[in-house]
Amino acid sequence: MAELIDGKQLAKKLNAETKVAVDELKASGITPKLVVIIVGGDGASEIYVRNKHRKAEQLGIISEVTRLSATISQAELLEVIETYNQDDSVHGILVQSPLPSHIDEPTITRAITPTKDVDGFNPVNVGKLYTHSALNFPVSCTPKGIMTMLKAYHVPTAGKNAVIVGRSNIVGRPMAALLLNASATVTVVHSQTKDMKAYTREADILVVATGIPHLITGADIKPGATVIDVGMDRDEEGHLTGDVEFESANQVAGKLTPVPGGVGPMTIATLMQQTVELAKWSE
Amino acid sequence: MAELIDGKQLAKKLNAETKVAVDELKASGITPKLVVIIVGGDGASEIYVRNKHRKAEQLGIISEVTRLSATISQAELLEVIETYNQDDSVHGILVQSPLPSHIDEPTITRAITPTKDVDGFNPVNVGKLYTHSALNFPVSCTPKGIMTMLKAYHVPTAGKNAVIVGRSNIVGRPMAALLLNASATVTVVHSQTKDMKAYTREADILVVATGIPHLITGADIKPGATVIDVGMDRDEEGHLTGDVEFESANQVAGKLTPVPGGVGPMTIATLMQQTVELAKWSE
Repeated sequence: MAELIDGKQLAKKLNAETKVAVDELKASGITPKLVVIIVGGDGASEIYVRNKHRKAEQLGIISEVTRLSATISQAELLEVIETYNQDDSVHGILVQSPLPSHIDEPTITRAITPTKDVDGFNPVNVGKLYTHSALNFPVSCTPKGIMTMLKAYHVPTAGKNAVIVGRSNIVGRPMAALLLNASATVTVVHSQTKDMKAYTREADILVVATGIPHLITGADIKPGATVIDVGMDRDEEGHLTGDVEFESANQVAGKLTPVPGGVGPMTIATLMQQTVELAKWSE
Repeated sequence: MAELIDGKQLAKKLNAETKVAVDELKASGITPKLVVIIVGGDGASEIYVRNKHRKAEQLGIISEVTRLSATISQAELLEVIETYNQDDSVHGILVQSPLPSHIDEPTITRAITPTKDVDGFNPVNVGKLYTHSALNFPVSCTPKGIMTMLKAYHVPTAGKNAVIVGRSNIVGRPMAALLLNASATVTVVHSQTKDMKAYTREADILVVATGIPHLITGADIKPGATVIDVGMDRDEEGHLTGDVEFESANQVAGKLTPVPGGVGPMTIATLMQQTVELAKWSE
């Protein structure tokens, strides 16, 4: 049986640290503030936004949720973002995905000023990550949270064989960059990879972020490997499940994140951590 | 025997295309202009700069070489760069490496305005590359030139196993990004990788950029693989040689770049190509 990586517990610990950092910042006259912009918004977006808002408030971060109509023009949305860019009381700005199809998401991503880009999606922050910059800059929260998990569970990275399944800008690519910066040997496999499982079976660290339920089973995992499941999928009965088939993976992996209770809670805790870091760096 | 990838011939062809593009731009009233800044400068830098200058002139690109004293302060250098950033007649700005140790190279890299960043090193351009942006942006010339070589020699990338040896910001990392964007399965190995050659032996496309003469021999290459040697090393007798041991690699590889006459000529031809692209995009 694998050691379970308890994301819920770790998020609790990280949130407690964030709370202390918030109190310290407040004592120095800065109250961290996060603005979440939601355009139109479906049920899932509403839940995500509500969870972020609640967590921010719990930690003493000012959370402002700006709800905009699904019919807002791109120019109007850019104006709203620019208002927050200029507002010194705001430290983090996040535009909730997905956006209506008439709005170009990369344009929105570039519009958020890099120093308030709490999602870490602005190309200038991605570029700093990918060039292993020594400066302070935000990083996509899910992979950053995964690095925190690996550290907390004493998973070495230098010289280890890390395989990332999926090449999204939100998880796969920044995860690869973080692990490369941490001196792992890094392979990115994806939908066009031939014999993907030949790679996953060799991974000391396996991060799976595809959105395909149970793509990876125990047979695809190296015995003793650390397996990070980023999936938030629904099984046939509508239950939340991961990209990794838990029961069989649990027999083979050395360390394993459950779904739910693994990566998910760490992503939101990392968002809070990063909001406070942005506030601190703004000093 | 491998098919040799003739970088010299290919560079000639690319330069001819660039010349046509320059003539077209001139007809529309724009003369592409490249500024190369050299600070102090050793013998090697002088040779590189002279080669760039000569090639630019041959192609009808205005080339301005600005020689600054090795004792110039960082602030003064930043001022010089800013003058060229503001000068509408300048389309590409390049600061020749290496810089004196009192100057912080990443700061200089970030100072060149992204639209004139002909080396493609500014984080905002790196970020566009790593997020696979659909916009026009410059890319590090050596890996961009390698992509041109792969295309010219009809080397497929999608689904192929690409292994990059070396993780520098100039070659290894942007090469990995370009190949990932081209749907290869991409592995980056480096000095901390355990059993590096277990990876190189599986590569369909192998790009070696380490600066270690003859690190890779025929025994480390998959039969039929495409091998790109970025090395510009000196052997014990002082002759130019690559990171790949040519004679043995030639027996195993399907396609192979020689040193000299492989990647080298393509890098400078790509720099010219990109200067003209920047001029075109500035319209």
